[in-house]
Amino acid sequence: MTTLLSTFEEIKQPIAEKLELVDKDLGDINSSVPLINEISKQILSSGGKRLRPLITLLCGACFGETNNTHIQLASIVELIHAATLLHDDVIDNSSKRRKKPTANFIWDNKLAILGGDFVYSLAFKKMTKLDNTRILDILAGATSYIVEGEVIQLTQNQNTKLDIQEYIHVIDRKTARLFKIAAHLGAIASDQEEDKASSLAQFGQNFGLAYQIINDILDYTDNTEITGKNYGDDLAEGKPTLPFILAYQNATEEEKSTLTHAIQKNPDINLVAPIIKRTNSLNLAKNTAKEFLQKATESLETIPSSSGKKSLESLCALVGKKLDITESS
Amino acid sequence: MTTLLSTFEEIKQPIAEKLELVDKDLGDINSSVPLINEISKQILSSGGKRLRPLITLLCGACFGETNNTHIQLASIVELIHAATLLHDDVIDNSSKRRKKPTANFIWDNKLAILGGDFVYSLAFKKMTKLDNTRILDILAGATSYIVEGEVIQLTQNQNTKLDIQEYIHVIDRKTARLFKIAAHLGAIASDQEEDKASSLAQFGQNFGLAYQIINDILDYTDNTEITGKNYGDDLAEGKPTLPFILAYQNATEEEKSTLTHAIQKNPDINLVAPIIKRTNSLNLAKNTAKEFLQKATESLETIPSSSGKKSLESLCALVGKKLDITESS
Repeated sequence: MTTLLSTFEEIKQPIAEKLELVDKDLGDINSSVPLINEISKQILSSGGKRLRPLITLLCGACFGETNNTHIQLASIVELIHAATLLHDDVIDNSSKRRKKPTANFIWDNKLAILGGDFVYSLAFKKMTKLDNTRILDILAGATSYIVEGEVIQLTQNQNTKLDIQEYIHVIDRKTARLFKIAAHLGAIASDQEEDKASSLAQFGQNFGLAYQIINDILDYTDNTEITGKNYGDDLAEGKPTLPFILAYQNATEEEKSTLTHAIQKNPDINLVAPIIKRTNSLNLAKNTAKEFLQKATESLETIPSSSGKKSLESLCALVGKKLDITESS
Repeated sequence: MTTLLSTFEEIKQPIAEKLELVDKDLGDINSSVPLINEISKQILSSGGKRLRPLITLLCGACFGETNNTHIQLASIVELIHAATLLHDDVIDNSSKRRKKPTANFIWDNKLAILGGDFVYSLAFKKMTKLDNTRILDILAGATSYIVEGEVIQLTQNQNTKLDIQEYIHVIDRKTARLFKIAAHLGAIASDQEEDKASSLAQFGQNFGLAYQIINDILDYTDNTEITGKNYGDDLAEGKPTLPFILAYQNATEEEKSTLTHAIQKNPDINLVAPIIKRTNSLNLAKNTAKEFLQKATESLETIPSSSGKKSLESLCALVGKKLDITESS
């Protein structure tokens, strides 16, 4: 058993220079319309962790040196991600993201919608320049799959009876798919055959599922300083995420009415939090997240030892540790 | 001089069967999410004229039989158009289009935004399937160029001092570019070299400019029954279009304050209409539209005689006739 790396800096180290090239590439948006540059730069440089580009590059680094195609693909997945964020913030009417004001807040919904369309179109331009059918095929279905997930999520709004499988189905689409593609493309840019490439795709998918569940847990964790998220946002938006679903499933009839009232009418987190605690839902959700991280790590078993693989394994462990900061119950 | 065709049906005749295949293709949207099918079908079957697919097919028919690539490209340009409409209607807060309720009105802004993203992604999927670098290169820049035009237009909102050149610059991006691409791709799918293909691209661009100017004239024409447009919408949205710009340029100081007040604060079309009339602005705008239609027809000079060419020439004449229904002053 290899010793794992314990910090994000160490994990990034094998591809740190390449990640800087991705940053540079994403900073090079050059529209003839100054306002479009401002909107694009605002979302692309507002302190994101570049997790998807990191995964593309690390998956590439599982098979030796990464090349320019990896950098382009890493930029593309981040652009798709940024475009979805611009539209998501309009849809959720969010005023803050990563502690900074959102585009719809700084400008307005109109410019945030058009900004998202522009960033999508940049991703598309980059894809076509790669002129690689295998890569285009994988990316072609990405956006429609993600959008389908978001529409399903909207239709589930305020639905207290959602089951875990339906929840997983949505986060697989809206979050995990882009991680899966990020990982898959990293292998493909290293000219890997489908067996290795699909192992990494599995890694990406399971990592993405865990990542979204962890985010949903942090949303129910009353420590904005540490989590960087607003306490109770999902409840306020009427989204039944895993902690809520688990609480509802294990609630008494009286608690069920409180939960229903909260998600449908008056999102008072202080009424919901005690039920989440009594039903042990954060811990149950944590277990589910850990299972997906475990599956992600297992997906790497057939991948040969390398600095890239070590970083991917360490990333799973580090993300798992994020769960320790949530309230134990 | 050939005798021109006088009805839309006659113009469509050379490619009528192919246009039905495009309709069928656009009706075949098959998302696993029923709501997405509903939104997509609502915009794709809400009585559009299919003008862009028509142009792709007719440009193809300038060089013999059209093939499946023409049909796919015709669908792609219509999908891009439909996606922009979904987002435009959110941005303009429109409740009706083509006399039917808009997606944002039937559902809400959230679903209309995601619907637009989905329809864009369908266009992209189709493009990648064609696996043709020359075609992908042309389509790659389309959306970003269109979006840039829409952002410039937003920044010009309520600006009474806009000049004609700035106005043309915007409509070239937001409207004419997709017509240009529709025409260009029609020639390319018929394996034409760049000289013929770029003549048709010029046709499409000039036709698109004329088409937008005509739409902007109809917006100031008080006859919704015939125009199919709401009288005074552009003024209400604060958009300084060609009739407004011309009126402002030729207005007295007193009229200028009325126009400024109307576009910036209280969009009373009944105060603006007399100024439009006194300054002869609709007729001046008509002349500009006719010049672009003339240029479009001239772009066809080097194209060999064919049923496709005859239909394109006739289309210019027919669209020009639409101007006769506007009030003469």
